[in-house]
Amino acid sequence: MPELRKDPVLKRWVIIATERSKRPHDFKKTLEEPGGAFCPFDYGNEHTTPPEIISFRGKDTKPNEPGWWIRVVPNKFPALNPELEPEKFGHGMYDVIKGFGTHEVIIETPEHNQNLATLPLKQVKEVIWAYKYRFNELEKDPRINYVLIFKNHGKEAGASLQHPHSQLIATPIVPKRVIEEIEGSYDYYKFKERCVYCDMLNQEYLEKTRMVEENKLFLAFEPFAARFPFETWILPKAHRFNFGEIEGEEVEQFAQILKNTLYRIYKALDNPPFNFMLHTGIAGMEGEKHYHWHLEIVPRLTRVAGFEWGSGFYINPTPPEYAAKYLREVEMPEEDE
Amino acid sequence: MPELRKDPVLKRWVIIATERSKRPHDFKKTLEEPGGAFCPFDYGNEHTTPPEIISFRGKDTKPNEPGWWIRVVPNKFPALNPELEPEKFGHGMYDVIKGFGTHEVIIETPEHNQNLATLPLKQVKEVIWAYKYRFNELEKDPRINYVLIFKNHGKEAGASLQHPHSQLIATPIVPKRVIEEIEGSYDYYKFKERCVYCDMLNQEYLEKTRMVEENKLFLAFEPFAARFPFETWILPKAHRFNFGEIEGEEVEQFAQILKNTLYRIYKALDNPPFNFMLHTGIAGMEGEKHYHWHLEIVPRLTRVAGFEWGSGFYINPTPPEYAAKYLREVEMPEEDE
Repeated sequence: MPELRKDPVLKRWVIIATERSKRPHDFKKTLEEPGGAFCPFDYGNEHTTPPEIISFRGKDTKPNEPGWWIRVVPNKFPALNPELEPEKFGHGMYDVIKGFGTHEVIIETPEHNQNLATLPLKQVKEVIWAYKYRFNELEKDPRINYVLIFKNHGKEAGASLQHPHSQLIATPIVPKRVIEEIEGSYDYYKFKERCVYCDMLNQEYLEKTRMVEENKLFLAFEPFAARFPFETWILPKAHRFNFGEIEGEEVEQFAQILKNTLYRIYKALDNPPFNFMLHTGIAGMEGEKHYHWHLEIVPRLTRVAGFEWGSGFYINPTPPEYAAKYLREVEMPEEDE
Repeated sequence: MPELRKDPVLKRWVIIATERSKRPHDFKKTLEEPGGAFCPFDYGNEHTTPPEIISFRGKDTKPNEPGWWIRVVPNKFPALNPELEPEKFGHGMYDVIKGFGTHEVIIETPEHNQNLATLPLKQVKEVIWAYKYRFNELEKDPRINYVLIFKNHGKEAGASLQHPHSQLIATPIVPKRVIEEIEGSYDYYKFKERCVYCDMLNQEYLEKTRMVEENKLFLAFEPFAARFPFETWILPKAHRFNFGEIEGEEVEQFAQILKNTLYRIYKALDNPPFNFMLHTGIAGMEGEKHYHWHLEIVPRLTRVAGFEWGSGFYINPTPPEYAAKYLREVEMPEEDE
């Protein structure tokens, strides 16, 4: 049974995944290349994943058979268990919650060798619609207090399968990092009576040096205090708190800027490993006025080492102004629609 | 000129290392094996490092020549620059400090193929004395507000050289992570009027299941909410705030438990990559009563991926109780003194 355990000093929660517990000799494997020709996310292998939660598929096709273009399935090795109740208990001085939660996989395309940077724009839009759908469904469960959508691309970024996919983990508690962002943006709001992210957008327009890509509704830029080389954020230009409320033209424009930004990173850095994480408020959470949803893309080019772990400081060897310039200079293909 | 830049939401500082700025094609190299037979930390190559700050060496030997057993030198590619003044300035809405600070390397032995787990205990004690000496020297500089001692061992843990060495970075600001620990331990102190780390020691003795190694003055254990498999902390049993005040028997006992704990990890996990970080108060800092210095050892066995970056949550596939058992079962060599 997985457990959520709380660090008594930092109030940071850790998921102790007791069920797939690893022994010393198991760790060799995790650092090796995911091998083998078999892929559970390919057409024809639908029965090798847990049954699908939803799929976008042709009218005459059946669930868990080919004919889909997007599939959402439970993670076969989930970090959290939807069958548990999120019961709290003490363990001496320590705090524990039973490991309730969900862990889903969004299979972004049936095409094994594709990726979000090179898929047709139409398909990327479908991925965003799938995110929105699952986000809104899970948000309704009163036991769930946060829904995190993220992507690991490439072995160095923690992906165990190459086939294009994103993941979603829904948890009974709001993660520390999100609380810090909500509180930090509130501190700014108290002082300025404005959203700090809206102010960042304005400053990026004034300077232009960190801008990477923009369209009518979104801006992609390198943050001023980027932790990592080529770290790139995408923000809606208008003040938006909850990703789950995205719709219509916003979905289209978000898909477009996401695809184009990932394409620039793909070309400039030769398909690097990367993670992206959607940071958002959810219904019922404090922060409507001062928090602003955004996507953080982090190429994995440097190693996080002792100094970073020990301090929470980061050393970034590529100033964001230089990184933005390299990304802007990438030659873009014709728009596909 | 390196800059410290502050994230306006999270108040996290980032060192933007403008001088050794990396372009897209530079990143291929950082993921490759450090190669070549030449090592600047070997005997005879002393002239290839910046001139030594201190060394422990034979009476008839000269600085920057062989005959030493410990050498401390400035990092040849420092993240921060001791020649700058830590001047603060604004950049629009953002905050910047000129990249003042020091970055030093503690060469732990002349023997290239050794490591702290296998060096004679006598030599490990000398390493601790070197830590203490540099820590106390730097603490005196009023421009320096924190001194972080850490070690990267192995390529996966960010080490660019194999020769045994630790590092020290002294910064003009107290890192976010340290502030969080000081504040978190103060919250506990307000409630309990006790040090949370002292209480952890007591709880670990009650349960015994997470204990790894102990001696008269120190305990090594797997923390209850361990982020990583085989994460191990070493704490002085008595309440101690400032590592810089370590002396006499404490140095000896700390060297012994550090060596033995690293040896257990070395054997159980076949010389894994790891980081360790010394978390401590320094003179003049708040927290004497509620903060307690400790060393955190983190073997690098799993990859930190999108979920961790996005949430501040960690998923640990090895319960600390199991990890402790494996480490306790390691067969130890005879004590060497």
